[in-house]
Amino acid sequence: MYPNDGFRELERAECLRLLAKVPVGRIVHTRQALPAVVPLNFRLDDDGSVVVRISARSELVRAIDGSVVAFEADEIDAGAQSGWSVVVTGAAAVVTDPAACERLARTGPQSWAPSPQEVFVRIRPELVTGRQLVGGRTLYGVDLPS
Amino acid sequence: MYPNDGFRELERAECLRLLAKVPVGRIVHTRQALPAVVPLNFRLDDDGSVVVRISARSELVRAIDGSVVAFEADEIDAGAQSGWSVVVTGAAAVVTDPAACERLARTGPQSWAPSPQEVFVRIRPELVTGRQLVGGRTLYGVDLPS
Repeated sequence: MYPNDGFRELERAECLRLLAKVPVGRIVHTRQALPAVVPLNFRLDDDGSVVVRISARSELVRAIDGSVVAFEADEIDAGAQSGWSVVVTGAAAVVTDPAACERLARTGPQSWAPSPQEVFVRIRPELVTGRQLVGGRTLYGVDLPS
Repeated sequence: MYPNDGFRELERAECLRLLAKVPVGRIVHTRQALPAVVPLNFRLDDDGSVVVRISARSELVRAIDGSVVAFEADEIDAGAQSGWSVVVTGAAAVVTDPAACERLARTGPQSWAPSPQEVFVRIRPELVTGRQLVGGRTLYGVDLPS
């Protein structure tokens, strides 16, 4: 997100409210020194962190565990040129606490295809930014202040 | 995109065909050493490159011009757990050739809110990857080969 571009910035609480509405977002990370992005279903946890559930043997876990990632979700109506986009940026880490894992097994996201070894990965909401697009105004024209 | 995860990889031509169907994607880049992601309307050019039109004075232009970025678009039906995701990875550069600018002014993407100074930014399709999600199978369980 870029400040000072004249568009409506969303408050953190509003960002989290919007994020809770949608089932799928995108994990933005680095893979082999290149920018990478993976859509994934997720659940917003009580503290505003984003939780995903993926195979413990996946390359994605290796790529993001212990790294700072961004998680983006949006709803954009291209016809009306309106919508919103929210980005949570923070450290991603495999959840290892047994009590937390047990709780997430009940309340966390379900894999779209369960695999025998799964882990929950939590993305801390260290930075939560969002922007609302009003019809007819570009999302990210982003003029710098003079 | 992660290989060897058992899901249907899409051929380059199919990726580009899908990409051409949607009006909005997301530019994945690095901003102040952090992963960043910005939704933007775009146009797929004849050579498979992704072209966006943004304010010449934007922070986004400064962040991506001359850098390798990823551009992602998807259509996912969370209810049916099906859909696709395509990622174009390559160098982003402001289009400076006058003939190319003139052509893009006619055929390229229109800004959702024109600003006085705009530029076209082209993302070269150096790597085009895509994955199709079949209902009931997770997009990115991504088990590594044994």
